[in-house]
Amino acid sequence: MKLYGISGSPNTWKVRATAHHLGIDLAFAEVDIFKGENRTREFLALSPSGRTPVLVDGNFALWESNAIMQFLAGLKPNDLWPDDRRARADIMRWQSWQLAHWGKEACEPLIFENMLKPMFGLGAPDALAQQRAGQAFTKEAALLDRHLDGRPWLVGDAPTLAEYAVGSYLFLADAARLPVGDHPRLAAWFARVAALPSWQATAPAMARAA
Amino acid sequence: MKLYGISGSPNTWKVRATAHHLGIDLAFAEVDIFKGENRTREFLALSPSGRTPVLVDGNFALWESNAIMQFLAGLKPNDLWPDDRRARADIMRWQSWQLAHWGKEACEPLIFENMLKPMFGLGAPDALAQQRAGQAFTKEAALLDRHLDGRPWLVGDAPTLAEYAVGSYLFLADAARLPVGDHPRLAAWFARVAALPSWQATAPAMARAA
Repeated sequence: MKLYGISGSPNTWKVRATAHHLGIDLAFAEVDIFKGENRTREFLALSPSGRTPVLVDGNFALWESNAIMQFLAGLKPNDLWPDDRRARADIMRWQSWQLAHWGKEACEPLIFENMLKPMFGLGAPDALAQQRAGQAFTKEAALLDRHLDGRPWLVGDAPTLAEYAVGSYLFLADAARLPVGDHPRLAAWFARVAALPSWQATAPAMARAA
Repeated sequence: MKLYGISGSPNTWKVRATAHHLGIDLAFAEVDIFKGENRTREFLALSPSGRTPVLVDGNFALWESNAIMQFLAGLKPNDLWPDDRRARADIMRWQSWQLAHWGKEACEPLIFENMLKPMFGLGAPDALAQQRAGQAFTKEAALLDRHLDGRPWLVGDAPTLAEYAVGSYLFLADAARLPVGDHPRLAAWFARVAALPSWQATAPAMARAA
C-alpha cells in the first residue's frame, strides 16, 4: 500500500502514526502542492479534489484521512479500533467531532492564519477569522478538558484512533499559537499522546517538515 | 433507544431515516433550542456541547450524527453498512467528506445565510460567507456529479449510509437556494435518494418541520 501525502500536514501525520502503531508498512510519496503535483491528471484520478492524504491499495484509492485510519485499523485485530460496537461508535464520535468542529472550526483556521500565512507569504491574518477560531478553540478545548477529567484516554483505558485523530493538530500548538496550556487536562493528555512510541517514531520527521 | 434531536435539522433527519431503513424503532424527543432545552444541566450531561442529535442507549449517550448512523447500522447485518472492509472505508470516506467539506464549507453556511437567517430574524446575510459557500458548493457538487457518472449510488450498487449522510441537506435545496440543478447527475441521484422508502416515510414530517 502507498500513501500520497504532505509530510508537514497533520492529516498525513495521523495516518502515518496510525500505520506505525498497527505495524503496517506504508510506502510514502510526497505531494508537492507548490509544484502543482496535486493538480496533475494522474493525481486527480486518485483524489478528485486534489486533497491529501490518499491511500492506494491495488485498484482502491481512498481519500479522507479518518476513512484511511478506519480502513488500516480494520486489516487486523488491534487495540486502536476494538471489535466492540460501543467502543467503535465512541471513537467515530471523536473522529466526527475532529472533522466538523475541532479541526474545521478551531485548529485548522488558527494554523492557517497564525502559521501558514506568514510562513508562505499568503497575506495578512484575517482578524475576524482569528477571533472566531480562537473562540471555537476555547469552546472545544474546554469540552475535551472536561471529558478528560478522570480519563487518561478519550475512549476506554488505552489509546485508540481517537488519540491519533484529535491529537495531530497539537504538534503545531507553538507554531500556530493554539492555547493548549489554558486547559491543563488537555495539555496533560497531549503529553501522553505525544509520548506514544508511534508518535515518537514519526513525530521528529513531522517536526522537521513543519 | 431514544433520540434527542431537532425535527427540522438535516443531522436529525439522516439519523431517523437511517433507523427507519434498518427497522429500528427510536423514541424521539424534540429539543427546542429556542426554549434553551439544549442548555439544561440534564441535556448537557448527554451532549456537553449542547449539539443535537444525541442517541441514548441505556447508559451510553452518543452525539455526532455520523457516529450514531454507524452505531445503529452495526446492530444487525444490513445493506447500508456492508460487512466488507473496502465498502465500509468507502462509506466512511463520504461521511468524512460530508462532515468536513460538503456540510461545513458548502451546504451548512448556505442554509444558515439563505434560510435560517431570514426565517428566524438573525440579521442580514453575510455576502462574503454566501460567496465562499457558493464557490465551495460548486466545487464539491461537481466532484459528486463526476463521481456519479455511471453510478446509481455513491458506493457499490445499492444505497448505503453514504446516501443518508450526503443527501440530507438537499431536502432544503429550494429553501436554501442550493443550486443542485446545475449538476444533472447529482440532481438525478438525489431524486433516487428522495424516493427511497425510508426518506419517503420520514421526509414529509421533515418538510413540515422545515
